[in-house]
Amino acid sequence: MADLPSTPLLDTVDTPDALRKLQPHQLRQLADELRAETISAVGSTGGHLGSGLGVVELTVAIHYVFNTPDDRLIWDVGHQCYPHKILTGRRDRIRTLRQGGGLSGFTKRSESEYDPFGAAHSSTSISAALGFAVANKLSDKPGKGIAVIGDGAMSAGMAYEAMNNAEAAGNRLVVILNDNDMSIAPPVGGLSAYLARMVSSSEYMGLRSLAKRAIRKFSRRLTTAAGKTEEFARGLVTGGTLFEELGFYYVGPIDGHNLEHLIPVLENVRDSAEGPILIHVVTKKGKGYAPAEAAADKYHGVQKFDVITGTQAKAPPGPPAYQNVFADQLIKDAESDPRIVAITAAMPSGTGVDRFARAFPDRTFDVGIAEQHAVTFAAGLAAQGMRPFCAIYSTFLQRAYDQVVHDVAIQNLPVRFAIDRAGLVGADGATHAGSFDITYLATLPNMVVMAAADEAELVHMTHTAVLHDSGPIALRYPRGNGTGVALPEVAQRLEIGKGRIVREGKTVAILSLGTRLAEALKAADVLEAKGLSTTVADLRFAKPLDEELIRRLLTTHEVAVTIEEGAVGGLGAHVLTMASDQGLIDAGLKLRTLRLPDVFQDQDKPELQYAEAGLNADNIVDTVLKALRWNEAAVTDGARA
Amino acid sequence: MADLPSTPLLDTVDTPDALRKLQPHQLRQLADELRAETISAVGSTGGHLGSGLGVVELTVAIHYVFNTPDDRLIWDVGHQCYPHKILTGRRDRIRTLRQGGGLSGFTKRSESEYDPFGAAHSSTSISAALGFAVANKLSDKPGKGIAVIGDGAMSAGMAYEAMNNAEAAGNRLVVILNDNDMSIAPPVGGLSAYLARMVSSSEYMGLRSLAKRAIRKFSRRLTTAAGKTEEFARGLVTGGTLFEELGFYYVGPIDGHNLEHLIPVLENVRDSAEGPILIHVVTKKGKGYAPAEAAADKYHGVQKFDVITGTQAKAPPGPPAYQNVFADQLIKDAESDPRIVAITAAMPSGTGVDRFARAFPDRTFDVGIAEQHAVTFAAGLAAQGMRPFCAIYSTFLQRAYDQVVHDVAIQNLPVRFAIDRAGLVGADGATHAGSFDITYLATLPNMVVMAAADEAELVHMTHTAVLHDSGPIALRYPRGNGTGVALPEVAQRLEIGKGRIVREGKTVAILSLGTRLAEALKAADVLEAKGLSTTVADLRFAKPLDEELIRRLLTTHEVAVTIEEGAVGGLGAHVLTMASDQGLIDAGLKLRTLRLPDVFQDQDKPELQYAEAGLNADNIVDTVLKALRWNEAAVTDGARA
Repeated sequence: MADLPSTPLLDTVDTPDALRKLQPHQLRQLADELRAETISAVGSTGGHLGSGLGVVELTVAIHYVFNTPDDRLIWDVGHQCYPHKILTGRRDRIRTLRQGGGLSGFTKRSESEYDPFGAAHSSTSISAALGFAVANKLSDKPGKGIAVIGDGAMSAGMAYEAMNNAEAAGNRLVVILNDNDMSIAPPVGGLSAYLARMVSSSEYMGLRSLAKRAIRKFSRRLTTAAGKTEEFARGLVTGGTLFEELGFYYVGPIDGHNLEHLIPVLENVRDSAEGPILIHVVTKKGKGYAPAEAAADKYHGVQKFDVITGTQAKAPPGPPAYQNVFADQLIKDAESDPRIVAITAAMPSGTGVDRFARAFPDRTFDVGIAEQHAVTFAAGLAAQGMRPFCAIYSTFLQRAYDQVVHDVAIQNLPVRFAIDRAGLVGADGATHAGSFDITYLATLPNMVVMAAADEAELVHMTHTAVLHDSGPIALRYPRGNGTGVALPEVAQRLEIGKGRIVREGKTVAILSLGTRLAEALKAADVLEAKGLSTTVADLRFAKPLDEELIRRLLTTHEVAVTIEEGAVGGLGAHVLTMASDQGLIDAGLKLRTLRLPDVFQDQDKPELQYAEAGLNADNIVDTVLKALRWNEAAVTDGARA
Repeated sequence: MADLPSTPLLDTVDTPDALRKLQPHQLRQLADELRAETISAVGSTGGHLGSGLGVVELTVAIHYVFNTPDDRLIWDVGHQCYPHKILTGRRDRIRTLRQGGGLSGFTKRSESEYDPFGAAHSSTSISAALGFAVANKLSDKPGKGIAVIGDGAMSAGMAYEAMNNAEAAGNRLVVILNDNDMSIAPPVGGLSAYLARMVSSSEYMGLRSLAKRAIRKFSRRLTTAAGKTEEFARGLVTGGTLFEELGFYYVGPIDGHNLEHLIPVLENVRDSAEGPILIHVVTKKGKGYAPAEAAADKYHGVQKFDVITGTQAKAPPGPPAYQNVFADQLIKDAESDPRIVAITAAMPSGTGVDRFARAFPDRTFDVGIAEQHAVTFAAGLAAQGMRPFCAIYSTFLQRAYDQVVHDVAIQNLPVRFAIDRAGLVGADGATHAGSFDITYLATLPNMVVMAAADEAELVHMTHTAVLHDSGPIALRYPRGNGTGVALPEVAQRLEIGKGRIVREGKTVAILSLGTRLAEALKAADVLEAKGLSTTVADLRFAKPLDEELIRRLLTTHEVAVTIEEGAVGGLGAHVLTMASDQGLIDAGLKLRTLRLPDVFQDQDKPELQYAEAGLNADNIVDTVLKALRWNEAAVTDGARA
């Protein structure tokens, strides 16, 4: 581990109150120390680095100028919040980031009053900040809502919906657009800094407001024309037309690493009687750390690394990641089926769609953070004869639920959902867990829902989805690497709604869906050792159920347990419903359903999260034994677990 | 019934092919006859009228100019598609609109090849049209995707997401903005029609394209500046800045009722090598029918009416509508609790929020068609101490599922969801059914889910939600009028997770959630008459379950049936899961779950839909008797149902 950086000034600043006692000329040093501390911390924990480094000065400037926590500061997504955490009383725990029991990798209300709103999914900050601003307006409190949102997050529809409603907040809403896409952002110099300061000044704001109000007395036509005159003049050096049309005062662009530019503009905005205001700040992701600046991804998400060299710890070589297994099979199928196209919502590498894009650039669509559009776009493609694969993380598919229902399922269109990050996800915690997709998809008519038990199964399921032309189909698989099984030479087409017996026994039946199969097999070994002959089935489908197989297992074994990587209402509920519909429970049925617990689980290593959830071999065994003893207690000596 | 209108020309035009054989000067007469036929048809069926009347000329012009169905025409939402149905081979069934077995009130793929994409929820058309356009581009087919979308639908984020991605389609995508909000749209005259025709001409398009491409060689700064020069000149008479920023060629505004303006512009657009193109058309909702033009809502949705007078059939006086019962109680509570605010997403009267707005205008927020923003905005308000009620239809809350999970449930914020139109909805059919909310909400940790059995219960549940400060809570209730029970003088605070016994018996237990309670009580009468003493419970809560009550009912009755107005994975699944968790099924349990079937049900009268679904007294009785015979078969003479 590298030595801790020397941070004499930062050591004296443990809260924004202390920060606000500094002189302006001290802020540069503070920012430098904050950057060094951020690098050092992430070097020891891994996590998101580039985003935080890009907003070090912005973090310092916002807390310096605004009255946090009464002014409510909301970091969109939250990847960039580590410097904020260091400055807001959490420095002592900053080297526990994203670890079990440690600090969250995102903002989190339970961690600090300086985190008024948790984040992790993109593009929620403006809506939330507007909520804070309006609540204060209604209660006649002075605090502002301040959203800091990246240019990528602006592609999501809900950011637009929020901006469209922002006028209600007046000057209590401040949106800071953190524009770090260097391909869009122009270099920013003194002239534009001067202009930004000028247009954010109260005199100028007042003039604009007066002019706008005067013009509103005329027709809309005139508003447009007269408004455009001013806009045209300013537009030459700015570019905020879109935001002005949505009702914001636009200020910028300004250099987000220059505190002498940032502070006076923020002060003007703080004191403005007009609003809402959008401040366009240009930053560099990875700023100030050479290895990050040099890297293609700007160290967006990193493993632990050596601070001096920037060398990241390598994961030991292992089985392939699920998303790559999926993508490689899709590429194989796409070679002979030109109807196959792939769609991702700003997650090309996380979903493996980057691989598909290299093979079929014209048949790949990265729509940005726009899951709603992704799904209905796919429905349109399918209705015109294409066979689209929407590769979206389970948790983000929630963004497109209505589109899945209304545009895909009701119309029974052959859209394929490749659902990555299904189940618990480890360091990203509750906000990223893929807990609900089995439940929210299997309740829909026309939908087929598969879960892969390992990477070989994922090959077959991808191929099965390719060939399933009669309606929608979803395949889910976890984050991370496969189990190491051999990949099949030739992908099989699975029969829809048919499971498989993995191990045949007589007394206990374990009905598994997804990658808990490995734990089911471990449990079977333990049970066998106790004299309980155990069948393990991989159901493969949560919908339609393999009713024949399930009926047979339930009626020929003494006890049965379902297990799935999902919340209540999924596989277990469907199996119970089938057993009830068919009267199988009438005469007595020892059937238990293991599922995710009814809590949002915090981050930890996935295997510890699953142990906490009871979705492991130990708890399968316990559940079976308890179910058997429930009966034995009456006839034997009342043994208890 | 009024006489059928005289439609000599329309009688000769039963498909767009026949339409395209007419001379341009005949189109005015055709449009007039089409308008008369639309008025006559809706007069006899009821349904959506104002929207269709607003697009009569547009409908004629699009089919005349474009090559439908190969050019794929998508009507956003679909309220305006009746004239389109008349022109595309469905005139013979137009007087069956929205009736059981009749034409859908929306576009529907199974009805006609001229309906390439079904609609009903707002703002999907651009994404879908883009799908069609891109599919054709990939397959090298000539057809275009044409989306017709209203200005209101443009407020939804997914429309913005789609526009942001439109450049991929090139000239294969045409978006027609049907702007019928007269408060925004300026009067449109000859000059603007001339300019619209000019800027849509191939010569001008070519010039713009050339200029754009040349400018792209310079920096973004220069693009903005030079682009704005042209935009500034055009902007004085147009206003398409937003669309141009999103990558569209903007044409308009043009008078949507003037065929001589519409046809040449559409022809230019059809033949343009450039795209995507947005055509801004200004129309009048209700155009050409005096009673509609005079009405405040422009006859948006009407009952059957007299064509001569415009007088609508009055519904017989009856119990109050659920949404008004909800709103009236909320107003009562809001008088003493200033933290209560109400949010609607463009459905003020449908949700009763219009009443709340009259009482508390400053505490009411209509965010437009923007459910995602509505929910996260509510979360922000709640985090700052307010007590927001999001009043959203069940089917539309699907649009905000991720926000419910990520911003409300994970943070356990006291947002209240007033879920209207829960269960089957009648004439609006499958797209509007509120079938899934119990399932998709009850699977979430921290969520409380209630369903009202009648309007008196809704009073109590509204009040209970007001006082539930510890986390989110949802209350669901159906479309339409209450059952006629007396409304309570004083609203009670219900204990969270506690049901009630409505009728006490011994042999059969019916566990009801929601307004099927009336059918449960009817069924109990029938069962009693057969000698089966029957308990009826109103569980009130799908989550948390009243475990004590349920356990008692299951263990002390011979047979139990749950019933709910929702799909699989909801109440019945949760009751079964509880029974399994507690081992109640081990020794045998005759428990059945009645729920919506695993199909999307078409429109019909709600009571017929529920009969089809088996959620009525008859099927409760059948289910009970079958469950009992299942057992009796072994011991008696094998009687069967």
